[in-house]
Amino acid sequence: MIYFDNSATTAIYPEVLKTYTDVATKIMGNPSSLHNLGTVAERMLEASRKQIAELLGKSASEIYFTSGGTEGDNWVIKGVAFEKKVYGNHIIVSAVEHPAVKESANWLATQGFDVDFAPVDEKGFVKLDALSALIRKDTILVSVMAVNNEIGAIQPIRQIGELLADKPTISFHVDAVQAIGKIPLADFLPERVDFATFSSHKFHGPRGVGIVYVKKGKKLQPLLSGGGQERDMRSTTENVAGIAAAAKALRMTLERSQANLTKLAAMKQVILDALAAFSDVIVFTKTDDFAPNIITFGIKGVRGEVVVHGFEEHELYISTTSACSSKAGLASSTLVAMNVAPKFATSAVRISLDESNNMAEIEQFLTIFKQLHAKFQKIQ
Amino acid sequence: MIYFDNSATTAIYPEVLKTYTDVATKIMGNPSSLHNLGTVAERMLEASRKQIAELLGKSASEIYFTSGGTEGDNWVIKGVAFEKKVYGNHIIVSAVEHPAVKESANWLATQGFDVDFAPVDEKGFVKLDALSALIRKDTILVSVMAVNNEIGAIQPIRQIGELLADKPTISFHVDAVQAIGKIPLADFLPERVDFATFSSHKFHGPRGVGIVYVKKGKKLQPLLSGGGQERDMRSTTENVAGIAAAAKALRMTLERSQANLTKLAAMKQVILDALAAFSDVIVFTKTDDFAPNIITFGIKGVRGEVVVHGFEEHELYISTTSACSSKAGLASSTLVAMNVAPKFATSAVRISLDESNNMAEIEQFLTIFKQLHAKFQKIQ
Repeated sequence: MIYFDNSATTAIYPEVLKTYTDVATKIMGNPSSLHNLGTVAERMLEASRKQIAELLGKSASEIYFTSGGTEGDNWVIKGVAFEKKVYGNHIIVSAVEHPAVKESANWLATQGFDVDFAPVDEKGFVKLDALSALIRKDTILVSVMAVNNEIGAIQPIRQIGELLADKPTISFHVDAVQAIGKIPLADFLPERVDFATFSSHKFHGPRGVGIVYVKKGKKLQPLLSGGGQERDMRSTTENVAGIAAAAKALRMTLERSQANLTKLAAMKQVILDALAAFSDVIVFTKTDDFAPNIITFGIKGVRGEVVVHGFEEHELYISTTSACSSKAGLASSTLVAMNVAPKFATSAVRISLDESNNMAEIEQFLTIFKQLHAKFQKIQ
Repeated sequence: MIYFDNSATTAIYPEVLKTYTDVATKIMGNPSSLHNLGTVAERMLEASRKQIAELLGKSASEIYFTSGGTEGDNWVIKGVAFEKKVYGNHIIVSAVEHPAVKESANWLATQGFDVDFAPVDEKGFVKLDALSALIRKDTILVSVMAVNNEIGAIQPIRQIGELLADKPTISFHVDAVQAIGKIPLADFLPERVDFATFSSHKFHGPRGVGIVYVKKGKKLQPLLSGGGQERDMRSTTENVAGIAAAAKALRMTLERSQANLTKLAAMKQVILDALAAFSDVIVFTKTDDFAPNIITFGIKGVRGEVVVHGFEEHELYISTTSACSSKAGLASSTLVAMNVAPKFATSAVRISLDESNNMAEIEQFLTIFKQLHAKFQKIQ
C-alpha cells in the first residue's frame, strides 16, 4: 500500500496514539471539577496548551481547542462577524478557501453580511491589488488560507498583513490547516495575523481536535455556548486525551519538519521532472511558492476519478483534489477560480506526500503512472 | 479512590478504548476520500451509525455525530431557530436546562429571538400548566432536558410531548445527556420528540463525540458549515475511531442498563436512608421520578465546596452540583429555579453513582460523611 493522500488525512503517529490511551486511562477527571481529579486533568490540559503555544511562538492564553479545522474556521468567521457587526458587515475571503471558510461566509451572507471573494491569478495566488481594491470602510474581516489544499499554493500572507497594517480594525484570519509543518511559521503567522486555525489529524494527531490561535485582545463570539470552558469562548467538556495527543503530534511534526521538507521537496521534484515529459499532462502545481508536499496534475481528456481508481487498483492512494468535495464529482473550486477550463479542471488529481513516503514509492508511482497513461491513450 | 462524580464524566471502558485504538490504527482513511481507504472508513462510520440507531430504536438516517453534548445542544437550538425564524421567533427552554441549552437560547435572544424559560416546581419538575401557558402562535421550539444534571429530576417528557401533540410546527428538543442508560428510552424518546442530544463521555465512551437524533423530515441549519459531511448537516472530517468507540460504549451501557439500574437504586436508597437521620441535612433529590444515580444534598450552614474538599481528603470525589459551573462558585441554577433559599442552595453537593461503584464504597462514604458532619458541627 502506498498512501499519497496525506492532505486528506494522515496516519496517527504510534507515539501520539500512546499518549491518547495513556491520558484517557490515567487522567479521567473533568477539568471543570473542583476536586483533585479535575485539577489533574486541568493541569494536563494547560500543559498541552502551553506546549502548543511555545511551538507556535505564541502565549498559552492565545490558544484555544476545538473539534477540528472546520469548527475553528466556522468559529472565527462567524464569531468575528457577529462580534463586529455593529462596526461593519463586510467580509472578504479568498476565492480558493476551504469550504469551511467559504460556506461559513456564504451562511453569513444569508444573515445580512456582505461577502466578497478575493480572486486569484492563473497560478492560484490571491491577487494583492484585487484584494486591496475590495477593502471598504465597513470591512471587518479578511480570511486567506496559508497553503491551498487543492494545489499547494502558498498564499502571500505576509504581504496581505502589510496591506492591512494601517487597518487595525480589520480582523485577519489565516486557515493554516495545510501549512503547519510544511512551510515556516513566519510565512503564515506574522504579527499582523489575528486568528489562525489548525487541525490535528493533518499532522499525525487524532481526529476531532483543532487548535485556534486568537491574538491577545482580539474578540469574537463563541460558536459553542454553555458551561464556560476555554475561558468562556468554547464550551464543552475538554477532550484532554485528544488535546495532549495533538500537542505531542505537533511537537513531533515541527521537530521533524526541517529534515522532512528537504525530503518532500526532493520527492516532489522527481515527480515534476517525470510528468514534464508527457505532453498531455498539465501540472497545476509549481515549485516556487508552492508547498513541498502537494502535486496536482491532470491527464488531458481523462477524468480525475478515473485516474484515482486506476492507481487504487495498484493499492496506491491519491485523490481528486480535496477529499471534502471529491464525492460530489465537482471540479476543484481552486482550479475553477484560476480560470482553468472545466475540461482540464475535471482531470485534476492530487498527490500529497508525507515524511513516511520514500523515493522507492515515488518510483513505483511513476511506473504505475506510465502504465496507466499508456492504457488511457489506447482508450481515447 | 472512590469516584462518585460520574455525572461530570465517566471512565472510558477499556474495551471502548481498545476499539478506539484499533480503528485509529487500522482504518486511517478519510471517509470522504474516493479511494478504497476512504470507503473502508466510511463503512465503519456507517456501521457505527446503524448500530447507534438500532440501540436508540431509530433509523440510521436520523443519527448525526458531533463533538459532544454541548455542540449537539448548540446545533439544535441555534440551527432550529435560524431554520424556522421565518415562521416565528419564540423559543421556550426550561429554567433548569444545562448551560449548553440555556446559553444558546440566551445568545439567540441577542439575535432578536424571544426566549422564555419554563419554570419548575419546588421538586425541580417543569410545570406543565406554566409551560402550556407560555406557548404562543410564533413558538418554534421547546427544549426540555430528560434528566436534570444537578438533582436528577426526570422531566415529564411524554406529557410535554402530549401537550405538543396538536402543535406539529413546534420543534421539540430533549437534552438526553444524563438520561441514557439511566431511565428507559421510552421515557425520553417518545415519538413526539424531534431532536435529542447525547454525549459519549457520559456513558463510558471517549470525549469529543456526541450524537444527535434528528427525526426524519425535521429541519435545522448546520452549525458547522463546510465540506458537506454528515449529509451536509455537520461538516468536518469524521472522527471515525471516536464514533466507533462511542457506538461500542452505548451498546455496552444499554446492555448493562437493566442490571445497573437495580444496583444504582439500591445504593441510592442506602444513602438516602442514612442522610434522613441528620436533621441538618437537606436532601434535594427524591426517589419517585428521579434518576437512580444522583443524590444531591446539603449540610445546613456548610458551603458545598467545603464538603467536596472534605471528602477529597479521603480520596472520595463528589461535586458541587454541575462540573460546568462549579469553579464559578455559583449556587446550582436548578436549585435557584426551585426557589431554594440561597443559603441552602450554596450548601448543595452532588453524588453521581455508576455501575462500577459498590455497596462497600457507599458504606465508606457514609463513614466519612459522619466524621465530616461531626467536624463541621464543632466548627459551627
